Parts: sequence; C-alpha cells; structure tokens
Amino acid sequence: MATRGPRIQALWHLPWLVFLFSTTRVFCASPSKVPRLGVHGPYGARNHHGKVKVQSLAPSEQEFRTFYYNQTLDHFNYSPESYKTFQHRYVVSFKHWRGPDTMAPIFVYLGEESSLNDDLGYIGILSDNAARFGALQVYIEHRFYGESIPFVSREEALKDANLRGYFSSGQTLADYAEVILHIKKKYSADSSPVIVFGGSYGGMLAAWFRLKYPHVALGALASSAPVLYFDNITPSNGYYTVVTKDFKESSESCYKTIKQSWFEIDKVAAKADGHSILQKKFNTCKVEKLLDSLFSVAAQYDRPPRYPVDLVCKGIDSAPEGSDVLDRIFSGVVAYFGKKPCYNLDAFFSAETLEGWTWQTCSELVIPIGRGSNDTMFPAEPFDLKEYIEECKSAFGVPPRPHWITTYYGGHHFKEVLRRFGSNIIFSNGLRDPYSSGGVLENISDSILAVYTTKGAHCMDILPATIGDPDWVVLQRNIEIEIINGWILKYYQDLLENSS
Amino acid sequence: MATRGPRIQALWHLPWLVFLFSTTRVFCASPSKVPRLGVHGPYGARNHHGKVKVQSLAPSEQEFRTFYYNQTLDHFNYSPESYKTFQHRYVVSFKHWRGPDTMAPIFVYLGEESSLNDDLGYIGILSDNAARFGALQVYIEHRFYGESIPFVSREEALKDANLRGYFSSGQTLADYAEVILHIKKKYSADSSPVIVFGGSYGGMLAAWFRLKYPHVALGALASSAPVLYFDNITPSNGYYTVVTKDFKESSESCYKTIKQSWFEIDKVAAKADGHSILQKKFNTCKVEKLLDSLFSVAAQYDRPPRYPVDLVCKGIDSAPEGSDVLDRIFSGVVAYFGKKPCYNLDAFFSAETLEGWTWQTCSELVIPIGRGSNDTMFPAEPFDLKEYIEECKSAFGVPPRPHWITTYYGGHHFKEVLRRFGSNIIFSNGLRDPYSSGGVLENISDSILAVYTTKGAHCMDILPATIGDPDWVVLQRNIEIEIINGWILKYYQDLLENSS
Repeated sequence: MATRGPRIQALWHLPWLVFLFSTTRVFCASPSKVPRLGVHGPYGARNHHGKVKVQSLAPSEQEFRTFYYNQTLDHFNYSPESYKTFQHRYVVSFKHWRGPDTMAPIFVYLGEESSLNDDLGYIGILSDNAARFGALQVYIEHRFYGESIPFVSREEALKDANLRGYFSSGQTLADYAEVILHIKKKYSADSSPVIVFGGSYGGMLAAWFRLKYPHVALGALASSAPVLYFDNITPSNGYYTVVTKDFKESSESCYKTIKQSWFEIDKVAAKADGHSILQKKFNTCKVEKLLDSLFSVAAQYDRPPRYPVDLVCKGIDSAPEGSDVLDRIFSGVVAYFGKKPCYNLDAFFSAETLEGWTWQTCSELVIPIGRGSNDTMFPAEPFDLKEYIEECKSAFGVPPRPHWITTYYGGHHFKEVLRRFGSNIIFSNGLRDPYSSGGVLENISDSILAVYTTKGAHCMDILPATIGDPDWVVLQRNIEIEIINGWILKYYQDLLENSS
Repeated sequence: MATRGPRIQALWHLPWLVFLFSTTRVFCASPSKVPRLGVHGPYGARNHHGKVKVQSLAPSEQEFRTFYYNQTLDHFNYSPESYKTFQHRYVVSFKHWRGPDTMAPIFVYLGEESSLNDDLGYIGILSDNAARFGALQVYIEHRFYGESIPFVSREEALKDANLRGYFSSGQTLADYAEVILHIKKKYSADSSPVIVFGGSYGGMLAAWFRLKYPHVALGALASSAPVLYFDNITPSNGYYTVVTKDFKESSESCYKTIKQSWFEIDKVAAKADGHSILQKKFNTCKVEKLLDSLFSVAAQYDRPPRYPVDLVCKGIDSAPEGSDVLDRIFSGVVAYFGKKPCYNLDAFFSAETLEGWTWQTCSELVIPIGRGSNDTMFPAEPFDLKEYIEECKSAFGVPPRPHWITTYYGGHHFKEVLRRFGSNIIFSNGLRDPYSSGGVLENISDSILAVYTTKGAHCMDILPATIGDPDWVVLQRNIEIEIINGWILKYYQDLLENSS
C-alpha cells in the first residue's frame, strides 16, 4: 500500500475542514464519555472504568459550585484588545476542605481539550483523595472549551482567525495561574499548598504548569502526558509501535490478520467496483480510517472491564470458519461497536474536542506521529512536516509553529535539564497506552519521578477508584498519593522550621 | 511639605506625555552613558567606571558582528498578525570562542531598556572572561529598543496602542530563547552551555530567563536585579531608605542639610514670587525633581573613581561660610553637574530609554517606590497604586497590570519557592545601590546564591574590569566567575557520566 502522506493517525475528519484535515488526539476519556454516543452506543450505557453509575460524582453529591472568573484575554500583550475579559468557568468542591487555618491543600484539576462537564464525573483522583487530605477541589476549564469561550459561540470563535489566535497553551497556563491565585486570595488560603493534576494533554499542562509557575503550584501529577512527543525527540512511530505491541500481546493471530488486512483492502480497492465492495462490507466510506481509529482507540483505552484490544482480537480470531481476512477484521469492528448500519468516524469524540484540538495541533501542538513501511502492523504513513504545515496553512491560513513547544517548555535533553532544575512532578503512564511512547518513563531526580504500570492504559490512574480495579492500578495510585503526601509534609515542615 | 501623590521617584517627565507622568528607571549605566551628555557633560568625557577610553571594546577590536533574526511578533498568540516578523538585532564576538567541538560555552548578555549600542562598550563581564572560558559572546537587543523596533520608527511604534502591546517582558524572554536556539543551531553548538547575564531590569530578565527557560540557559547572573520590588514584597520606601543611608554615611551634616532643604524650598515657594526665586537660584523650573533625581542617581551609581555621593556632599558641606541651606544644596548640584546655565532633567537618560521604560512601567513593571513622612531624608511621597493606575490610564488608555509580574515570575515567598525549585542563579548586588533593597540578598539554595558587596553600587560587577577597581569588586567578580565555572564544570561532568 502506498504511503499516504501526513494524515497523522487519521482518526477524525472535520466537516468544516471539508475532510481535508485529520488530527491526533491526546485525551483522557474513552469514547464512551461523549454524551451523544454515551446514551445509545454499545459502549455507552456503562462507562469503561467499570462504574455503572457515572453520575456518582454529580454536582449535588460533591457539593460542586460553579464560578466564573473575569479572565484576561491576552496575558502577554498590552494592546487595548488584550485587556478584554471573558467568563472563565471553574468548579469548586468545599466538601472535604479543612480550610485555610490548617493550611489544608488545594487540589486543582487543569482542564484539557473538552468541556469541564466531561471531567467532573470522570476524574476521580481529586475526589477520591480529598477527604484524606482535607483538600479543596478545584476544576478549571480550558479556554475555548465548554463555557469558557471568549465572547461568542464556539463555532464563531474558531472561525475567527483573530479570536482563535488567543487559543494557546501559554495563555491557558496563565489563565490557570490567575484563577488559582484568585481562589487563594478569595478564601484567604495563601499558605495552602496547591497540587495540580491533569491527564493526557492536560497532563502536559500540569507538568508545564509546575515548571512555569512553581510559585503557584507545589507539585504536579502529569498522567499519560506525552511531553516528549514533539520535535523528533520521540521516534515518530512510537505511537503505532505500542498499538502494534498491544495487539500482538493480546493475540499473535489477530496481529497477523490485521497486518495482512491492509494488503487485502488494497487488493479489493484496486478492482473496478472495489470501493463499493469495501463500503458495503464495512458499512463505512473510510475503511482504513475506521480501522486505524478502532485499533488506536482500543489500545489507548485498553482498560478493564472491557479491555477493548482483547475484545477486538476475540472478534477477529473467533470469526466463523471459512471467514477471509476482511471478514475477520469486520468481525473485530462488530465486536467493538456492535452491529450498526453505519460506522461513523466523527462519532468518536465530541465535535468540540475534535475541532478545538485540530486548531491546537495545527498551531502549536505539532505531535509528529507517523510510521514506516514495516515497523508496525499498519501500512506506512510517515510523518511529513512540510505537508503537515501546508495542510494547516490551507485550513487555517497560518502555519503551525512546530518548534515552539520545545522552545517554551523544553523537551530536548529533558532528563539532563530537569535533573539540575525543578522538582515535584510525577509523570505517570501505562505502557499499553500508545502515548506512553512520548512520556517520561525514568526517574529524573529525587522528586521528578516516573510512575508507570506495564498493563495500564491512557490516564487510568486518575479515573475514579472502583472495587474492581486491578491491584497494579491501585498500587500506582497509592504510590502517587504517597509521593504527593511527601511533598505536602515537606512543605509544612519547611514552614515550621522557618517560623521557629 | 505636603504629600505629592504617586509620582514615584519623580525623575523624568516625558514631553510627549505633556509632563503628566514620571517614571522609575532600573538601568545599569550611569548617566554618562548617554551620548548627547557623554560628550560634553562634566561627567561625560571620562566614564564613571574609570575607563577613560570607553571605546576599548569597540566593534572592530572585539570582532563584533551584527546579525538580525526574523523575530516572531507575538509568541503567545496565533492570529495572522502575530506571525509577522521583525528584524531583531544581536551581536556576536567569535574572538575567543573555542567552538562547538569543545562544547565551549556561550555567554549571552540580555539587553535591557536601551539600545544595544549602549551596552557593547559598557558591559565588561563577558569580554573580560571570554578568553578564559573560550566563550562565544552574544549580545541581544531588547525588542522596541535600538534597531529592534517592529516595522516602524520608535516614535510611531510607541504611539501605536496596538503595536506597543507587543512590548512586554514575556515576549522579550521568548525572543531571547529563539535567538539563542537559533545561534546554537547555526553554529552546531547544541551542547555548548549557555550562561545569561543581565543588569538591573536586564538582571531581572536574566533571572527570569533561567527560571522560565532552564532548557536554554544553564545559569544566570542577575546583577542588581530588584526582582522583589513588586507587589508590596519590598517596603515601598526601600529605595529612598538606601539613598538616605548612603548620604548619611558619607556625611551626617550633608544628610541634615538635605533633610532640612525641603522645608526651606517650601518656605520660599510659599512666597508670592517664590517659584521665580527658586528657578533663578537653581537654574531649573523643577527644583524638587532635580534634587530628587540628583540624590537618587548619585546613590545608585555611587562608584569609583567619582563617588558621586561624596562629591555632592563635599559640594554641600564645603559651601562658603555664611551659605544658607539652599546655597549649600545648589553647591552640591554644581559639584555634580558643573556650572550650567540650565539644569535639564530630561538629559539624565536617552529619550529612548525614558519613553520605552515609561511604557513598560505603565503596563507590567509596576515598581511601587514611595516614602513615608519621616523615614528618609526626602519629603513624604507615598506610592499610591490607585493614582498610579489612573495616570497610566490617562497616558496610555490602558491601566497597568500591577500583579502580573508576581503572577508570572513569582516573588512572594521567593526563598521558600526557589529553595525547592530551580538552580544556578547568582543575584549580585551592591548595598549602596538603592535598588538592592528589592534584590535577593540571601543564599536560597546551593546554587541560587546572593553575592553582594556593602560598598558596591548599581551593576558594578558587570562593568569592565579596570586596574583601579577596588579589591571588593574584584573579589565579587571572581566569586561570581568561579560559581559560573562550577556550573559549567558540573555540566561537562554530567555529560561525561552519561556518555560513559
């Protein structure tokens, strides 16, 4: 199969870009999280981390209160326009907070590329540990998502070439700093240590926040944060290498079938009515993209109780006798999605996430994911920066700045730089998560630590704890919390020593 | 004398603000540096650090070469406008560089609120030490100064409310990061350790650069950087308290005369033709501002061979017998400036510095300098943030963001925060410098260190070494260079260990 250019990961095509452009996604929640699928999809009625009732953290129960901060549009500019403010949403739970007098900590979840609504019921690590620490829980929405869109509707904001210019990670971190300082002031909690949490892209934000604002956050838990997947620090095939490994580990025959399938698809597609045959067989117009997405998502969110990689492979391996390669593959599709008249790629994530993330990856978050001709179970699809830039330019009128992330946040010689600078960051990963290939998997110093599980998937550690959780994720969470506890105790100890 | 509101330090009034507004200045060079005074003023023919020939570091001699980098207008925004680039000047001396193969270091001077032309002849620490380290010397101009003004003339740029919005410290640090990475790439010097140097406001930039870009600079020397003179971390009278101390230490009678003089000025001013009398006596329309500036500048730059505080006090104390208080004060003015038909305040610094700095202090660099009614030798002039904001608003149409510096760079609990985060910063000060009151005067950790001299003035340590330098400044420089040497050796050692 011929090389198909830079459509990295090729998961979602956005209608408003006329299917021109595809996108990566660095996102904690499994697809079940998306409401419009969640209520009727085969994987929606129960969410993937095993809690049947995902509303267990509903606002009323957690005593969540919603606030809006007058957020500065541009923190790094002093033009009259920059001074405009928009309503920036954050949500607080006071339920377990022991208050400022005891200097009880503040746990802050840093929103990622979705509405905060998506996070409140799905992020568990704050609420699961708030009681023990007597912590205030704060969840801050990412600008340009959810209710935190400046001035106009989301659609209008993203279409406005000037307004979407303010949609960047640097501005977002500054937003978080302002909101956290505002909260500390509002509740007279100047001495309360702040720990920031985030997953996936939000995990990058958490790590970067500790690096850029050490005076605001004492420490950070960066879950499944591929901070090294920029600028050729990580080999571009890292992502698909892990997807491949996951499938191979689950079933050698499944892996072989998938590896073979692309040639079969090409063979059929080469026929006169080939595309029509494929379309009918798979109930979709984009067979390769559907499969690429399916295998990627299955690997990324390969967690209990569903274990989607096993599920897909079981479908593939247990197809009726006499099934050919493509029948088997379709059997895997059905095993994951159920029988459906039409498999729609756009349904994987919300339009909000897809569209916002496409802009973010086309402006600064250039994650060069690709693969060579025989290094994964997928067909070759090398990452071509030049083409990528051209596609972004034609979509948005401006090219990405592919080196800005490493210029601003670093990444090259990460270990060497942070061994002599910085502290109090946990990089947590699960090695079955393809994004772990761009994560930090080695301890860097006494307090910049890598905590990973070989069986873990994307962001598992920050999901709510449930009775059915495997031991290894329970252990991972305990280790993380004990490390954070150590930071906080040391903080109090330092205060005591200074005051005595 | 009545309180006179928020005209902090009240040194320079800018014509284009119709004398409405005054400004602080955080600036290394003594006034002699300004060319239009330097060539004919009494303190100009020879500069204040004792080198008669300030051109000893002239471009040809140092083999300085000038380059221009296509600098991004706005690093934190992705609007089409943000992508515009301007010519950003930097100057390199290869004279002593041992080159990338030996991983010889790169010394980078971070420009402050002036043209780079002003720095090349006046900053000595890079050129004085380049041979020993085999270092490349790089000097980078601050955006909106010198030749690094985006698109239009300086006057036009500062008048344009949108364009001057890009004139901020955050953008400037990002500029420096880009230029340094560009140079490393250009000369294949990826492994060469970078040390950044800066003085005064440039010293703040150096410290902040190490904090924000530890992956770009291994360490920073921040000379006379009042990083704590923001947001009420330092008492607002810190500056004038040191000025007062300097004069009192020089001569108790001089101090008393000055302290008394304000009442005498008020007394004369209260007469029907008082202002005219004062004007004739002092050859200026703004007696109080002239004196405030004179005493401040004398203290700030109180260094050999001229020692302006002693000089002024000698003038005051040795006035002919029978001189009254105001005669004595005028005698001090003449001792400093020489006899002149008119003492012009605007002449202290270049228009470029005055105007640029006024904008910077009116946007983000709000340094709350004031004084109470009996805590210095000056009349009361408390810092009034509200009035300050109003004045800036009426001058520029937008208010300052007085808390942004501490939000972005920190400052509160500075010691506690940096004891557990960061490394490799020297904060150097001279305690006779009024700005040392807002500096870091205690070691924070093993590698965030305070190196000060009790007799030193503003930025003395980074001026060119001369034979007449007092021992204590020689010692201070040696200590600084040995600390930096230690950072570099440790860097090489780490590289060796990792490669073996």
